[in-house]
Amino acid sequence: MRATQYEGNKTFTVVEREIEAPKEGEVRIKVAYVGVCGTDVHIYHGMMDKRVKMPETIGHEMSGIIDVVGAGVTGFSVGEKVVVRPLDDRLVQPSDKGFNHICAKLKFIGIDSPGAMQQYWNVPAFTLHKLKQETDLKLAALIEPLSVATHDVRMSGLVAGETAVVLGGGPIGLLVAMVAKEAGANVIVSEVNEKRIAKAKELGLNAVSPLKIDLVEYVREQTEGRLADVVFEVAGVQPALDVMCEVAGIRGRIVMVAIHGQKKEVDLFKFFWKELKLIGARVYEKEDYEKSIALITTNKLPFEDMITDVQPLSNIQKVFENIDNNPDGMKVLMDCTL
Amino acid sequence: MRATQYEGNKTFTVVEREIEAPKEGEVRIKVAYVGVCGTDVHIYHGMMDKRVKMPETIGHEMSGIIDVVGAGVTGFSVGEKVVVRPLDDRLVQPSDKGFNHICAKLKFIGIDSPGAMQQYWNVPAFTLHKLKQETDLKLAALIEPLSVATHDVRMSGLVAGETAVVLGGGPIGLLVAMVAKEAGANVIVSEVNEKRIAKAKELGLNAVSPLKIDLVEYVREQTEGRLADVVFEVAGVQPALDVMCEVAGIRGRIVMVAIHGQKKEVDLFKFFWKELKLIGARVYEKEDYEKSIALITTNKLPFEDMITDVQPLSNIQKVFENIDNNPDGMKVLMDCTL
Repeated sequence: MRATQYEGNKTFTVVEREIEAPKEGEVRIKVAYVGVCGTDVHIYHGMMDKRVKMPETIGHEMSGIIDVVGAGVTGFSVGEKVVVRPLDDRLVQPSDKGFNHICAKLKFIGIDSPGAMQQYWNVPAFTLHKLKQETDLKLAALIEPLSVATHDVRMSGLVAGETAVVLGGGPIGLLVAMVAKEAGANVIVSEVNEKRIAKAKELGLNAVSPLKIDLVEYVREQTEGRLADVVFEVAGVQPALDVMCEVAGIRGRIVMVAIHGQKKEVDLFKFFWKELKLIGARVYEKEDYEKSIALITTNKLPFEDMITDVQPLSNIQKVFENIDNNPDGMKVLMDCTL
Repeated sequence: MRATQYEGNKTFTVVEREIEAPKEGEVRIKVAYVGVCGTDVHIYHGMMDKRVKMPETIGHEMSGIIDVVGAGVTGFSVGEKVVVRPLDDRLVQPSDKGFNHICAKLKFIGIDSPGAMQQYWNVPAFTLHKLKQETDLKLAALIEPLSVATHDVRMSGLVAGETAVVLGGGPIGLLVAMVAKEAGANVIVSEVNEKRIAKAKELGLNAVSPLKIDLVEYVREQTEGRLADVVFEVAGVQPALDVMCEVAGIRGRIVMVAIHGQKKEVDLFKFFWKELKLIGARVYEKEDYEKSIALITTNKLPFEDMITDVQPLSNIQKVFENIDNNPDGMKVLMDCTL
């Protein structure tokens, strides 16, 4: 089979490798599509070389079909469409309080162990979620990032009729916006990149540039002074941290989706004054996957438009180079049959 | 009657003033005791001269007895013991979403309008909470700060058996700790001032100095690795902001009680990684007052030990000067009959 390997130094190789039998408790998946996550790009840039052992097959946004069911696995059959929830929580401890998805010794499959950027992939059966036979496997590769979004929205406690401001219109920001809108929210996306604003509008979202308008005043007008009930901070930059406390109304909830590698300045006075909540949100839980699978399967939302490129797996090096050269792109998939 | 006035320039005067009749909708209270709040000390230091019009009678932590019931007021009788919830929310707007206690146009009685540091005080009847006849009026002057604590604990969602770390052992920190302990939490107070640590211990609390022990490791040992379920940030200093994210366990809730006048550095990565929540909490709501009145009336907690000095109202200048000279003190009351 064809497999890819991250070799360090911004280099992927494509190799021929023996197809391995699944171990006990595992299932072998014939991978259909694999998406490129921002984290994969970080790996490519060498930002995670301490964590990723090289050479390594990475990738965790995928869809596929069960190829072989390993010993001791029940409830799955060859030919079923599946996605993997790439969280290995087997080292969970009582001190994790039952929050397995963020347990202290969590291993993230595709970063800490081999991932999906290959034609056949063995994974523990407990990571699998079944799809319907009618689920589109191309769209299904979006289920993992979409589950980040469904998790973020669920953690926010958003209810229909509320106003949600999404700071940052990259792939996760736009998925968050789509999910929040589907939940009945009045959604405003704030993004500085004009091409991303255009993409958001193409997806039917209300998107504005905080460089061109006063975001807080705009949201105030849109809400008769209530300001945002929920803010999603998906931008990861200081101006977003500054505006999040301004644009949130009384008792507003701010979901911290972005990963801030360093300590950042936050206006804690506003948290006190307006009784704001900051809610950290990371990855997803089972129910977020189920929600995302239902959304993808019914395909009511313009998920197709989120996919801006599909390339053969064998083009992996070019795919990552292109992502670096095209900051306007959204989700890039690789077809693992090619 | 005797009244006091803040004149600016760290100066209070004691004046003789006519006792005024209550206006329609008001009640006149014969003030029994009035406590000195940190905010009153800020006013004394001139930090709030832009907000406080001078000369002004300040003070909002109090207890008293109804002296006259104004026109249009029902449900109150002369001689009843009462406390005032000093929030004038008459300018509430729909954009405040029903959170009257922190409405955008809130006026704080005793800061934005005349306060309790006088012998007779006219207040809107809607600010009153009745006490029992057996409620001790001296302890009742603690109901206002205690309500800050009951609000903080309620906002945290604390449940019995959880571990709560209180950062800062001043009056509010210790009241928070007492309320959290009464709610069944395992409470650890972190405080650097040895006299305050001794006071906390006198109150039956577990108090440690983060200068002498590694607070995070201590809490880890105490909780079999779970770390804190709830953290109350009552210290208002950068080291507390640094440690709050460390000492909180997975899905820990951090209540922001302290007032941070400037933007501060926060480890947002930890919010993401452990799915922490930051919960802003300001003043109190009706139910917090009712909870505090019940706690003070049953007097099961060592509230008496929180009161470190009682002085005649006429000594107000000395009282504020002493507070500046004695950072170890807890709650100072003034007896308004003297």
